[in-house]
Amino acid sequence: MERDLVDWLQKTLPPHPLLRVGLGDDAAVLSLRQTADLVVTTDSLGDGSHFLLNEAEPRWIGHKCLAANLSDLAAMAAKPVAVVVSVMLPRGHADPLALAKGLYRGMLPLAEQFETIIAGGDTNVWDGPLTVSVTAFGQPTDRGALLRSNARAGDAILVTGELGGSITGRHLDFTPRVAEALLLHQRYDLHAGMDITDGLSLDLSRLCAASGRGALLDAAAIPVSPAAQQLAAADGTDPLHHALSDGEDFELLLTAPRETAEAMLRESPVECGLSIVGEVTARPGMEIREADGHTTTLEPTGFWHG
Amino acid sequence: MERDLVDWLQKTLPPHPLLRVGLGDDAAVLSLRQTADLVVTTDSLGDGSHFLLNEAEPRWIGHKCLAANLSDLAAMAAKPVAVVVSVMLPRGHADPLALAKGLYRGMLPLAEQFETIIAGGDTNVWDGPLTVSVTAFGQPTDRGALLRSNARAGDAILVTGELGGSITGRHLDFTPRVAEALLLHQRYDLHAGMDITDGLSLDLSRLCAASGRGALLDAAAIPVSPAAQQLAAADGTDPLHHALSDGEDFELLLTAPRETAEAMLRESPVECGLSIVGEVTARPGMEIREADGHTTTLEPTGFWHG
Repeated sequence: MERDLVDWLQKTLPPHPLLRVGLGDDAAVLSLRQTADLVVTTDSLGDGSHFLLNEAEPRWIGHKCLAANLSDLAAMAAKPVAVVVSVMLPRGHADPLALAKGLYRGMLPLAEQFETIIAGGDTNVWDGPLTVSVTAFGQPTDRGALLRSNARAGDAILVTGELGGSITGRHLDFTPRVAEALLLHQRYDLHAGMDITDGLSLDLSRLCAASGRGALLDAAAIPVSPAAQQLAAADGTDPLHHALSDGEDFELLLTAPRETAEAMLRESPVECGLSIVGEVTARPGMEIREADGHTTTLEPTGFWHG
Repeated sequence: MERDLVDWLQKTLPPHPLLRVGLGDDAAVLSLRQTADLVVTTDSLGDGSHFLLNEAEPRWIGHKCLAANLSDLAAMAAKPVAVVVSVMLPRGHADPLALAKGLYRGMLPLAEQFETIIAGGDTNVWDGPLTVSVTAFGQPTDRGALLRSNARAGDAILVTGELGGSITGRHLDFTPRVAEALLLHQRYDLHAGMDITDGLSLDLSRLCAASGRGALLDAAAIPVSPAAQQLAAADGTDPLHHALSDGEDFELLLTAPRETAEAMLRESPVECGLSIVGEVTARPGMEIREADGHTTTLEPTGFWHG
């Protein structure tokens, strides 16, 4: 089967001038445009944890596995260069080759959209569930990589898009905020950034910890997605809870000086929208200002795979 | 658990001047020494397919997962630079954190030995069996990457070490032939190379296919390992069959002009040993010359995971 898949991939994957050796050898050989730093990220996604093979089309699973890694490059404001893909196919599947092709059919349009080379891979059939491991490489811009650890007291906290409820579909079909991260990092003086994968409250607590700072969120300012509203209506919870705690938003969480953040909102340079949701504090720990003006401690309550 | 693991890794992984951003951000940032090409390889290994978690110590599993990837860099004659590691831990395990640490404890000495940065990773707990995905980056030497596709008719076919029977132990504790590949590629005019992971006959068929050539092997010249001898004595098979077909030798398969190959044997520059096992032929297909001088067709009968 692997031979058939490699044959198909060799016909299907577009050639690229920077890919000197692609599929079919022991490793891929990439030419780098410049001597810049290399940003590297890896993620494994598995059936039952990150997707359900019996509910989602293989191409959406493939899309998600690539998109999640590109989102990590976006989190560093790095321009994607290439990925390698390692797939473990379940032996009991009716048609493992079709499954593998489906995964790649989901990755290909996204790779094309973000000018990312699918440089190589590894495919096994095994007795466990489907897992897809993607490792992505990117290169930072002249402004360097955008880190989690550089938030400063007084910074405004911003998020792209709307949060919560991604389980209803967006966790599969999202577009990683690569273009937005590059544009914002280029145009504005961002201090810190990451992507929101495990819920705003948990990921913000990580950014604060990395920066040795705290945060005060403004409940009324948090952009709650329609999906979070629907989920909350169905399960009788607070939509805000979904926006704070649901996993896999794959939006950007950024900090910037207050006046920069206000300019970003005024100039509105990204279609997905931007919101100022709070402020970085000198004192560690997180608080949230409720709609009634009352401020309470915010515990990180995100969703973590494991 | 992931937080505990990241804390432990941040204390345990040695710092490196080329690793600008290590664990704890969305991605790692590596400085490359020069603008050379980047060699990239990825492999996922899973419980039940590549190792047995209930039989092998975690540190040997970790060793193998890293060593298998370094072996792919050796196959390209590339100098290892860094790896990223993605682990999916089985939820039912008694102590997932100890398991994860054990895996890394197996990787660390090998990474140190080959001056390889463990640059980052991803750890999940899930309902499936243990899987470890490693992606390794290397840089080719001035002589470029050693490809499978450049074998020429008349080349001698060489292998390092001894073949077969790795299942008795060597598949876990082998040393990847990184130093040997770099030395041989530097000192001699090698034409083609790969590592033997799925058995000599299957991997040689791949090298021949990539080069559009065939091969004539000399049965008497194939270095049969003591482990293959023991297995054959136990199961009543031919030791040569094990040497041709057993998987996971992780030795090098090389081709070079006849006189170069003879100089390599004479000068014996590598401790693991070198053997000339046959010749590349212009006509595709593989044959083997038996001890009695009789030549028969050799079918690729290696071990493939899946």
